[in-house]
Amino acid sequence: MRKWSHYMAIVISAKKKMKSDTIVAISTPRGVGGIAVIRLSGPQAKDLALRFLSVDTLLPRHSQYSCFSSDGELVDEVLAVYFPAPHSYTGEEMVELSCHGSLYVQQAILQALLDGGARLADPGEYTLRAFLGGKLNLSQAEAVADLIDSATPVQHRLAVSQLRGGYAQKLKMLRQQLVDLTSLLELELDFSQEDVEFADRTQLRDTLADLAGEVMRLIGSFSLGNALKRGIPVAIVGRPNAGKSSLLNALLDDDRALVSNIPGTTRDTIEEILIIDGLTFRFIDTAGLRHSDDSIEAMGVERSRRAVADADVVLYVHDATCPWQTPEIDLSEKQVIYVNNKGDLGITASLPTPSVDISAKTGVGLSQLRAMLTELYRSRIDGSNTLLSNERHYEALLRVQEALDAAARGVDGGVPADLVAVDLRDALYHLGTITGQVSSDELLGNIFGRFCIGK
Amino acid sequence: MRKWSHYMAIVISAKKKMKSDTIVAISTPRGVGGIAVIRLSGPQAKDLALRFLSVDTLLPRHSQYSCFSSDGELVDEVLAVYFPAPHSYTGEEMVELSCHGSLYVQQAILQALLDGGARLADPGEYTLRAFLGGKLNLSQAEAVADLIDSATPVQHRLAVSQLRGGYAQKLKMLRQQLVDLTSLLELELDFSQEDVEFADRTQLRDTLADLAGEVMRLIGSFSLGNALKRGIPVAIVGRPNAGKSSLLNALLDDDRALVSNIPGTTRDTIEEILIIDGLTFRFIDTAGLRHSDDSIEAMGVERSRRAVADADVVLYVHDATCPWQTPEIDLSEKQVIYVNNKGDLGITASLPTPSVDISAKTGVGLSQLRAMLTELYRSRIDGSNTLLSNERHYEALLRVQEALDAAARGVDGGVPADLVAVDLRDALYHLGTITGQVSSDELLGNIFGRFCIGK
Repeated sequence: MRKWSHYMAIVISAKKKMKSDTIVAISTPRGVGGIAVIRLSGPQAKDLALRFLSVDTLLPRHSQYSCFSSDGELVDEVLAVYFPAPHSYTGEEMVELSCHGSLYVQQAILQALLDGGARLADPGEYTLRAFLGGKLNLSQAEAVADLIDSATPVQHRLAVSQLRGGYAQKLKMLRQQLVDLTSLLELELDFSQEDVEFADRTQLRDTLADLAGEVMRLIGSFSLGNALKRGIPVAIVGRPNAGKSSLLNALLDDDRALVSNIPGTTRDTIEEILIIDGLTFRFIDTAGLRHSDDSIEAMGVERSRRAVADADVVLYVHDATCPWQTPEIDLSEKQVIYVNNKGDLGITASLPTPSVDISAKTGVGLSQLRAMLTELYRSRIDGSNTLLSNERHYEALLRVQEALDAAARGVDGGVPADLVAVDLRDALYHLGTITGQVSSDELLGNIFGRFCIGK
Repeated sequence: MRKWSHYMAIVISAKKKMKSDTIVAISTPRGVGGIAVIRLSGPQAKDLALRFLSVDTLLPRHSQYSCFSSDGELVDEVLAVYFPAPHSYTGEEMVELSCHGSLYVQQAILQALLDGGARLADPGEYTLRAFLGGKLNLSQAEAVADLIDSATPVQHRLAVSQLRGGYAQKLKMLRQQLVDLTSLLELELDFSQEDVEFADRTQLRDTLADLAGEVMRLIGSFSLGNALKRGIPVAIVGRPNAGKSSLLNALLDDDRALVSNIPGTTRDTIEEILIIDGLTFRFIDTAGLRHSDDSIEAMGVERSRRAVADADVVLYVHDATCPWQTPEIDLSEKQVIYVNNKGDLGITASLPTPSVDISAKTGVGLSQLRAMLTELYRSRIDGSNTLLSNERHYEALLRVQEALDAAARGVDGGVPADLVAVDLRDALYHLGTITGQVSSDELLGNIFGRFCIGK
């Protein structure tokens, strides 16, 4: 990962150069394929492309057959499409070239266009230009990156909802209400000698409560939204030798075809990713320690405690051949599935609900366990309108919530209008960072640095 | 590798189904990227695409923004281009959809179109349809696969030349002359009672000689063309301890950035691929044996002899600290570069030319050696018009040559016209297999089975 300062520099230079720079990149996945697409964006896009093409002109949005030659040598036969500004992805002049998907052809066309004066696009620069050109708001631009990264139907649905406007639309409406209120409050300042109240305090309090309620609802949805996007954290805990590792291995083995390396997911040695019925689960295995020595046992308990704290759901594994004992870890705040393992040995202890009898050894009960896991989420997903899944938006909304709380306390306590207005302006600022009505170079640098080159 | 019978079945079914089947595939390289392209070809392409798109119609060759929805859920925002028959790659109705390059989106769109009635395209099926629809001749269709596989400028130039017609055009003209001659000869058969000669025997002999000359020139160019396409085989030979392995390792280490795994190249333990100045070399190392025992030494000599026989150029490595000795292997028929190794020890033996003093240990002289290697080919490439690089064409031309020889012997020996005509028909047949004027299902199956899916 490069530092944000790198991307900040990119954003600043992009803003400066947008009017003069023409960028180019291979936009299709790396590698060999039937075809590949190379995109040019910027004021020179059309003229630059025409210098290498055998056609005299490019008609708007018309897919045109042409030869692409460089230094008098034919490189490839291509299809060229010209997208005139502002009706393109970036809002700038754009040309897309479809060529044969050979490594050499892709590189040769790219190199010719670079030699011709185009600059290699930075990661995310097409989408950055789309944002700067007013084609996408910031939340939508972020959704493009999520959409490209999405590997499951649920991740995909989150990204599409955000791309289509999602809660950004709602936040924009809320923000407008807040702008109106703040303006009224600030108007009072101009008449402060006359002690008038343009903003009705009861109405102000109600609107603040409405706003705070909506913000709280969105903040509350983040835990589920983020879990669905990043993978739902599942802790596997239980006493030593209960079969925690065996359970994890059985789940992984059984679903070999569905085990997936989700791009961008950080994995350490104790995490395993499993996609069950379209949902991504991150299993946090605490099964590394299996000793009878007391001091190590204590470490194991502490480790389990941390895994439980980070998890959204806990699989508590019990050895069915032993009598049931209350877990040493407090699970009262968590969603728990009690797993009665070693059912193949013919003895089953009586466990708290919800529980499931399985045998990690024979595989019995595993499909039921998987169904119970997905069931925990399926109903919550279907029942929810919009889920907040973007961490940056979550952080911004927490600050909005703080500012709204402060404003509400001010109104209740009869604080002067100008001080209340400061809190409201603060809330407005943080709301604006979500959709990009307020943006800084750092912010943009952080966001677009996540993208792949060519988008 | 699947068997040819599999591809034969594909070809036969493709021919039968072309009029009714609509095929679909992801045509861009596998993986995640900014965008991906999914192609539909066949009579239902347009109607099928429109069932999932938010637009009412698709204008010919117009890049149109649209939503792609399946089961009432938005999958992605796409750009759709409709290519009406016969002005498309395959000559059929075609639609190309550019979507976001997420794994999920690509799969979801593909799946929706499959569920909608399209069939997943077989490898090379788009190009097969282009051939069957008369958009490409067979030699050009083969060039498409070579073009996609090409990884160096030289491989690329060979493929482009073939795609643009190359020698196929010339062969077609030669074939026409031969057709005319054969027709005249066969006309004589109808008048055999009257003992007339429509085909002037002198002219016949001259035309046959012209044809045979051109065929021989092409056959002669195959060794270079094939070497350039597959990699030029270089044998590294020399006495034990001369430093053969060290030389190879020094070349590989020095050029680490240029070492490449060329797709489709079979490599065994004794071959190393090195791209030098755009040319692909396959180094055949005989350095595995380095013993003083006589019987093993004999094996080493035999092994070197075989490597030399297969090689296009030989690097004969000599230990500069030893006096020069004539190689035990006959190198008189080969291009040889004599390499005086261990130059860092300050002693240099006097070698036959061309020779170069190097030190595999210090790297001195390696760049000169590389320049000598590429120089051997650079002038021959620049001086040649068309190079035959396709093994199938080479085999066909060998048979053409045989048939033309037989025909010429027949004319010289006063053999009856009908027997000469049989030989000429044989030559015509094999010439026709190159451009596809003659084709069989097996032939097509073998050719198109080499392709990737989506092309």
